[in-house]
Amino acid sequence: MNEKFSKAAIIGVGLIGSSLARALREAGLAETIIGFDQSADVRARAVGCGAVDAAVQTLKEALGGADLIVVSTPVGAVAEILAGVAKEAEPGALVVDVGSVKGAVVNAAAAISTRAFIVPCHPVAGTEQSGPEAGFAALFRDRWSIITPLPRQDEEYLAAVARAAGVWRAVGAHVEIMDHEHHDLALAITSHLPHLIAFTLVGAADDLESVTEAEIVKYSAGGFRDFTRIAASDPVMWRDVFLNNKAAILEVLGRFSEELALLQRAIRWGDADTLESVFARGRTLRRAIVAAGQEKDVPNFGRDEKD
Amino acid sequence: MNEKFSKAAIIGVGLIGSSLARALREAGLAETIIGFDQSADVRARAVGCGAVDAAVQTLKEALGGADLIVVSTPVGAVAEILAGVAKEAEPGALVVDVGSVKGAVVNAAAAISTRAFIVPCHPVAGTEQSGPEAGFAALFRDRWSIITPLPRQDEEYLAAVARAAGVWRAVGAHVEIMDHEHHDLALAITSHLPHLIAFTLVGAADDLESVTEAEIVKYSAGGFRDFTRIAASDPVMWRDVFLNNKAAILEVLGRFSEELALLQRAIRWGDADTLESVFARGRTLRRAIVAAGQEKDVPNFGRDEKD
Repeated sequence: MNEKFSKAAIIGVGLIGSSLARALREAGLAETIIGFDQSADVRARAVGCGAVDAAVQTLKEALGGADLIVVSTPVGAVAEILAGVAKEAEPGALVVDVGSVKGAVVNAAAAISTRAFIVPCHPVAGTEQSGPEAGFAALFRDRWSIITPLPRQDEEYLAAVARAAGVWRAVGAHVEIMDHEHHDLALAITSHLPHLIAFTLVGAADDLESVTEAEIVKYSAGGFRDFTRIAASDPVMWRDVFLNNKAAILEVLGRFSEELALLQRAIRWGDADTLESVFARGRTLRRAIVAAGQEKDVPNFGRDEKD
Repeated sequence: MNEKFSKAAIIGVGLIGSSLARALREAGLAETIIGFDQSADVRARAVGCGAVDAAVQTLKEALGGADLIVVSTPVGAVAEILAGVAKEAEPGALVVDVGSVKGAVVNAAAAISTRAFIVPCHPVAGTEQSGPEAGFAALFRDRWSIITPLPRQDEEYLAAVARAAGVWRAVGAHVEIMDHEHHDLALAITSHLPHLIAFTLVGAADDLESVTEAEIVKYSAGGFRDFTRIAASDPVMWRDVFLNNKAAILEVLGRFSEELALLQRAIRWGDADTLESVFARGRTLRRAIVAAGQEKDVPNFGRDEKD
């Protein structure tokens, strides 16, 4: 039996916030869904595209009467928003965030005194689009949402964690609970480093004066286009991720650079065996991802339906 | 008016060879399509799945009477195959290869004396699948096929280049003609480096003992899965690409590493402006790729249709 909320306040109605708003409505989890966003333009668009019932200009208005509060801003803004939420939220309100980095959020939340319950969450889902129009209710379906609880063991708080898990399950996600350090390392390798590398590749291509952008576009089917999808992700969101998960990202980046140096050396010296054995590992992981339903796998994947 | 061939010989019936065989049949370009492959298993499968009309055990049998010869083996085998083709091919036969590296092919072909016409080609198309069953006729549709002619200007040879262009157009591809040095640099950035990086990332993830493979699979929707598609590509084919395009790959890899070092430093020192400005470049290129029809672009791209 899913918990029903009378008012959900969505703080930041971009891709993730507006998707969760739509998913809450579709699942019948909230009677009213109110958006708050710093930008008047975004507020108007969020209402215009039907993501939220109304959008308000102050955090106070958004939080008044809200029993579910979703903080879906870039990670860099979460600490400040949570400080404001702590003051204005109704006692007992459930507060979840959706940030891709959890250490920074847990540390900020643990330092705050509030009668609401802050449950740090990270739904591992997204697209390269941004803005309220880009959201869709099914974004979280069959994806994983990770909860990294605050370091407290009181019964009320544990119940709030269970309520948060219930919200994610109600919108179609699977739930995993882990500590924030492990989250930040696991996501550094599965999400943050891939984005960093994709941004780097696009930058390197952009700087290559002897190959034109038109050529890069034409021949992108050779592999490049697979990187451009994630390199088109929101720059501000990603800037905040890298600023807030520095240690874990530098750790996995160091490992990546070592592996790359190994392959560079193998190319330079014509070491066929090393190349082939490293390359052979890719298929195993790909098959596991496809088998787990985290990706479809058809011969013409990524091509037009007519193909 | 498309040229019709009486017999097409497909030397190597993997993903690309079997796709071209199917495309030739679909376009009515060849009366008979014969496959040759070193592996008896692959020969049997190529006939079994209907990619070719028959498969033969020797190059000589394959080439006898063939007026179109397609060399679709890994690049490392092309020089040796071309030497055999030069001896056995009918005078005037059109010989195209499909290798992802062209300098090595052009140099090998230019050193061979033959009465057939060798036209080095590279259709920029593929999937992460391999084997004759993975091929499909539409693989080349709306993709680019690059021709890097041998350094000869005689009329007969130029006519052969035009015939090769006609074959690619007849199977739905666009054709570009360029010199092999430029091809190898352009593809190093658009295809070879992306594959190298994807293989490297998968290797680095595999080596991270504190994050399990199950976790990598679960959270791959965070970005990692975009890399695994190309990291699942054929290891032998890619080994050969890296061994045969060393200079261009090391050049673009050097630029990639410089860009990565810049971002690493920005992360270490918390340089928000550098991160945001580098990240912002990704969207421009992505939009150009989508606009050129080299990728579809929907909010739920890569997810199941039901989403």
